[in-house]
Amino acid sequence: MPRLSARLADLQPSAVREMLQAAQQPDVISFAGGLPAEHSFDELDLSPPPREMLQYGPTEGEPPLREAIARRLASIGLDCPAERVMVLSGSQQGIDLAAKLVIDPGVVVAVENPCYLAALQVFRFFGARLQPFEVGEPRWASRAPALAYVTPTFQNPTGGCWTSEERSAFAGACAGNDVVLFEDDPYRDLVYDPCDRRPVCGFAPDGASWIYQGSFSKTFAPGLRLGFLAASENLFTLLVRLKQASDLHANRLSQWRVLQYLSAAGREARLDRVVGAYREARDAFDASLRRHLGNLASWRTPPGGLFFWVDLPRDVDEDALLARCLQRGVLFTPGRHFRVEPGPPGIRLNFSAASPERAEQGLAVIGEELRALRS
Amino acid sequence: MPRLSARLADLQPSAVREMLQAAQQPDVISFAGGLPAEHSFDELDLSPPPREMLQYGPTEGEPPLREAIARRLASIGLDCPAERVMVLSGSQQGIDLAAKLVIDPGVVVAVENPCYLAALQVFRFFGARLQPFEVGEPRWASRAPALAYVTPTFQNPTGGCWTSEERSAFAGACAGNDVVLFEDDPYRDLVYDPCDRRPVCGFAPDGASWIYQGSFSKTFAPGLRLGFLAASENLFTLLVRLKQASDLHANRLSQWRVLQYLSAAGREARLDRVVGAYREARDAFDASLRRHLGNLASWRTPPGGLFFWVDLPRDVDEDALLARCLQRGVLFTPGRHFRVEPGPPGIRLNFSAASPERAEQGLAVIGEELRALRS
Repeated sequence: MPRLSARLADLQPSAVREMLQAAQQPDVISFAGGLPAEHSFDELDLSPPPREMLQYGPTEGEPPLREAIARRLASIGLDCPAERVMVLSGSQQGIDLAAKLVIDPGVVVAVENPCYLAALQVFRFFGARLQPFEVGEPRWASRAPALAYVTPTFQNPTGGCWTSEERSAFAGACAGNDVVLFEDDPYRDLVYDPCDRRPVCGFAPDGASWIYQGSFSKTFAPGLRLGFLAASENLFTLLVRLKQASDLHANRLSQWRVLQYLSAAGREARLDRVVGAYREARDAFDASLRRHLGNLASWRTPPGGLFFWVDLPRDVDEDALLARCLQRGVLFTPGRHFRVEPGPPGIRLNFSAASPERAEQGLAVIGEELRALRS
Repeated sequence: MPRLSARLADLQPSAVREMLQAAQQPDVISFAGGLPAEHSFDELDLSPPPREMLQYGPTEGEPPLREAIARRLASIGLDCPAERVMVLSGSQQGIDLAAKLVIDPGVVVAVENPCYLAALQVFRFFGARLQPFEVGEPRWASRAPALAYVTPTFQNPTGGCWTSEERSAFAGACAGNDVVLFEDDPYRDLVYDPCDRRPVCGFAPDGASWIYQGSFSKTFAPGLRLGFLAASENLFTLLVRLKQASDLHANRLSQWRVLQYLSAAGREARLDRVVGAYREARDAFDASLRRHLGNLASWRTPPGGLFFWVDLPRDVDEDALLARCLQRGVLFTPGRHFRVEPGPPGIRLNFSAASPERAEQGLAVIGEELRALRS
């Protein structure tokens, strides 16, 4: 074997990746990934892009798309000029860029616990020391982290949503300690119950360091691999250089497609229909969960996003449960993949990909196997 | 300013990026970038992709596209199963992945001198010590490098093409010292004069460590941001995990588009027309160069690719020449951006983007300013 980089030692096979692959088996009922429902693609316009999009383009992205994103950010409470908006090749790329920007081996990164597993993977890969924090109490331990990674709106995996007070306090705690606030916000538009959603970065005082990122994967289409970031003035130019060294720029044909989508007359109505369908799926899933796991497990009905986080009885081994369910063609994500520190058993269940009938069937299997495992 | 990673100290503003931006001014005659001619896009099919491409897909890429790439690799002398082919978000991403795979701070990377500037940027960013080598004599100094980065076919910037003997010897020298051979091959199809082109990786013995990458930017369209890599068995799975952590997978709509292109009946004929037009542009450029710089500079007519490398008289300051030319709306890339060690002055000139008339005009300006600078 040749000499490879030290950081490879932390490069675990990606749980997400393995599960997406398993989920592609035709008969599997998968609650594992975060796949949008196929019906959400039905109304999207796929007309041919203009030929000039075939040439190289600017690293920051197409100017009209950056302007459309900046207008949208202003409307949700985050004022940022289009000059500080950059189009990404999916928001996973934003995590890679933020890690490159901040993390040297041993650098402390604050994360929620549980936390989005593909972010943990990247932070570990760059050598970060992960430090969990409590949302309500964002005081740092002896040593303030260099970066705080947060998904305050319909968190993955828990589905939770921070209050305005928590948002404001957190932005202040970061700014007061020169912590780079990194807010990942892919689920904001998938909202089923009213709740505070102003970006935490919108509360950041002047001079604070922040990166806010969003995705077009959840409301438009993941196959495009497009997201975006906005950042404070002291970080933006560095992030552009990092993006340039990573892949020059994002796919221009897809950028054009997203711009068409954002400007389409029927966009709001379509989004309402998609969100309405997801709300129904969530409610049906909630009912199925009560039927099959009601007296065995506990959960909060998520006010938005694509996931239920289900706490299991303390004596349950998540992986043993998964192994049993997999044998019956049912897939979910064990909680340990999202954890920074060991915690009580739990599982993450996606409710957007399987039909209500299949979900009912799959949850029945999980309930049966959970009972069998405990007896 | 918050705490940022040590590697940022080496993150220079990208010369490529700044130049691509300047080149977008409408009146500039740019010899700086590596932009394909607009006419090369004329015949490409832009019909709508199938709707299922909107969903998430596998990290390695679409299976039929990987198979098509593997068939193509076999036809040029590199046997690699489709299972070890991965689709990239442009070949710049392959450079990022290879750097992540191998480079810790202080690790030695062997490169040609001059070398593709955006690769140097990434290797420096990850902390590599760059060690130039002579193609004919690939014996390593006291310490063998961990990685050797080579563009043996129509090198960027020199346009050079290695002989079969050089290819075979280099593959052996890497394998004999556990050096990861990283071959970047974006220009292979833009061939104007016959020359050896079998991939160096095709000469790698069993058990050697190698990464071969190609691009769809030069013969199809850069706006798609799609390339691919193939790798030895000991590296492939690690590269897939690195790709997954970087952006999950490449744009599926564009992967579908490239597959249509690769299977289109008229592909070979179109490529012949594009290459024929580039050959004419190269020859016209060569004639213009002789007219305006014939007694001042020297160069080899490149047998393929998109660039002339022009050696200037020893007393010429590349940047002073650029500053004068820029004032007259003419842009090129000073040689120092490609150099690992200081060397005699030179410039890189792209001949594919400007029309023959504009190229003639621009080279006349360079000749005049070169004379003015020396008098």
